[in-house]
Amino acid sequence: MKVIILAGGGGTRLYPLSNEAHPKQFLCLEDEETLLAHTIRRFLGVARPEDLLILTNERYVAQVRAEVEKTGAQGAHILPEPCRRNTAPAIALAVCYCREVLGCPEEETLVVAPSDAVLRPAALFYQSLHQAAVAARRKKIVVFGVRPDRPETGYGYIEIGKPYGSGYLVRSFKEKPDLETAKRYLAQGNHYWNAGIFTFTAGTFERELAICAPEIAGRLARGYRAAAASFAQMPDVSIDYAVAEKTRNIVVLPLACYWNDLGSWDALYDVLEKDEESNVRRAGDITLTGCRGVLALTQGKPVIGIGLEDLVIVEAEDALLVVRRGRAQEIKEVLAQRRAAGTAATRGGKEEDDGE
Amino acid sequence: MKVIILAGGGGTRLYPLSNEAHPKQFLCLEDEETLLAHTIRRFLGVARPEDLLILTNERYVAQVRAEVEKTGAQGAHILPEPCRRNTAPAIALAVCYCREVLGCPEEETLVVAPSDAVLRPAALFYQSLHQAAVAARRKKIVVFGVRPDRPETGYGYIEIGKPYGSGYLVRSFKEKPDLETAKRYLAQGNHYWNAGIFTFTAGTFERELAICAPEIAGRLARGYRAAAASFAQMPDVSIDYAVAEKTRNIVVLPLACYWNDLGSWDALYDVLEKDEESNVRRAGDITLTGCRGVLALTQGKPVIGIGLEDLVIVEAEDALLVVRRGRAQEIKEVLAQRRAAGTAATRGGKEEDDGE
Repeated sequence: MKVIILAGGGGTRLYPLSNEAHPKQFLCLEDEETLLAHTIRRFLGVARPEDLLILTNERYVAQVRAEVEKTGAQGAHILPEPCRRNTAPAIALAVCYCREVLGCPEEETLVVAPSDAVLRPAALFYQSLHQAAVAARRKKIVVFGVRPDRPETGYGYIEIGKPYGSGYLVRSFKEKPDLETAKRYLAQGNHYWNAGIFTFTAGTFERELAICAPEIAGRLARGYRAAAASFAQMPDVSIDYAVAEKTRNIVVLPLACYWNDLGSWDALYDVLEKDEESNVRRAGDITLTGCRGVLALTQGKPVIGIGLEDLVIVEAEDALLVVRRGRAQEIKEVLAQRRAAGTAATRGGKEEDDGE
Repeated sequence: MKVIILAGGGGTRLYPLSNEAHPKQFLCLEDEETLLAHTIRRFLGVARPEDLLILTNERYVAQVRAEVEKTGAQGAHILPEPCRRNTAPAIALAVCYCREVLGCPEEETLVVAPSDAVLRPAALFYQSLHQAAVAARRKKIVVFGVRPDRPETGYGYIEIGKPYGSGYLVRSFKEKPDLETAKRYLAQGNHYWNAGIFTFTAGTFERELAICAPEIAGRLARGYRAAAASFAQMPDVSIDYAVAEKTRNIVVLPLACYWNDLGSWDALYDVLEKDEESNVRRAGDITLTGCRGVLALTQGKPVIGIGLEDLVIVEAEDALLVVRRGRAQEIKEVLAQRRAAGTAATRGGKEEDDGE
């Protein structure tokens, strides 16, 4: 088994803490380790270092290498992308690398996973990986789904079809819904969040890519080196859009473990350990008095909160954010407005998703 | 008439914006002028520059001089204090300066006023000064009172006695009350806030000082220069405690104008102009979305607030403060706790009053 870890995102969903220079995968959020380090350690439980492929943007190679060394994963392959072309070209290139450079056979199981999600406990995640490998051997593309516990508007959804093994056939993929739609999905019970984790064999992926995204497959025909060199000419498209939504050969497997993509401040609050007043103090000098349900985080100066409820306070180098919990999804829109207004200091205020 | 302006305070009631290095009188809060500049201009409406005496700590002399020049008050006397000894010694020394250096007669009217309060409109304030001068000529010490409109716990109170001229005899001074007591004062209607503005003749002050605070009066007997040189030996005591509370010769005059001492973030919010959502953005790059009743202020980095209600957000050099409006009085206590806990970065976290 090879594991393709997507660590090239420059997303800013945790703005202002994450930005182009410090994307989420390099942040220490739960404890003193980066999310990427946690991801590497997680996969070292089921794979050898030399089975790991870490895809990242050229500018992050040194940071990735540092995390690889810290986690004792020397031997892992770091694949630099010369530019951002979203997940489909990046994964296709990594599969090409597996086949051509590492000499993987057609039937080799490949796992594709983001570098910045929480999955725990590891044992249950491994159990899910095992189930996925079974389906992958049956020439299916497996995508992991998470049963929604709230009408989340920040995730893509997967509508399930008939049962298949320990999962379901996929009926359809759904874009991030509005609140009304998300509530309906939740009530219906036949929609899962798309966790963005895939399992397939190398051969299955190659076949499906040729069918669903021939423009990408075509560029890989000339081999890994040529494809990497002309990476900038690849279409800028996600694996969901290019393959998952088009193939008929895909199944969804409910994740057996807890999953959190830390894709918003609200999501981060959920995952962190709270004190008796449901407050979370992360890093730095933080004083909260008469506060409840507050997540406070500082990169430098002391933060003092008095008499606050259900807020997220982030004192970062670039900006200070104070947002009511539950409204973190609005940050994206506010950043877009600021950019449109030509406001200064929106460095890192790129609103789109993590790119990969 | 001479005006003694108290500009030596190093208080931090507007922490973290105000601190030892940048006390409140040098902050621009309402507009682009410092509070001291506003105070100087206000008194230039009734006095010549050479009638102004500005008392300040040695370390602030350059800052005071800059404000004097900006307001065209060249000729004003800047009296540096070598150390902080609260208001009684400072005022006593200034009166001594008036008599000895400026040659004021016994019957000269002296006004003592803080440098960091809002008093408007000026015309009504001048009317109050005129009434005070009348009582001062009758050998009274006059203190200005403000009729409470809320059960404020941050001010000292004055209990009024029988009517006297356009004011009342003072029955007693009351320390800052607890909330219950403040509510009772408000309900009774016979308690005024102590605005800390005094009017008296030089002779009245000298007589009352000799009676009420002989240890201070004694040190002035050797003349201004000697008293200034031994200023550090003066007792550290306020004019309220040393004279106002002890003399029987004091009257309270209700201020005819609006008064706000800007002694807390709550007080500052009250005085500033709000937008349609009752928000106040002061200085810098501030984005408020879905917010109501928020005062946001930054000294540097952008501030983004989303979905907030009734908060004060202050992004200052030393610290970030987020406090629910109405609870700003708790800052003092929190700073004391932080200091007690030996927390770093409480620079400027001195909790006591402005000193003068």
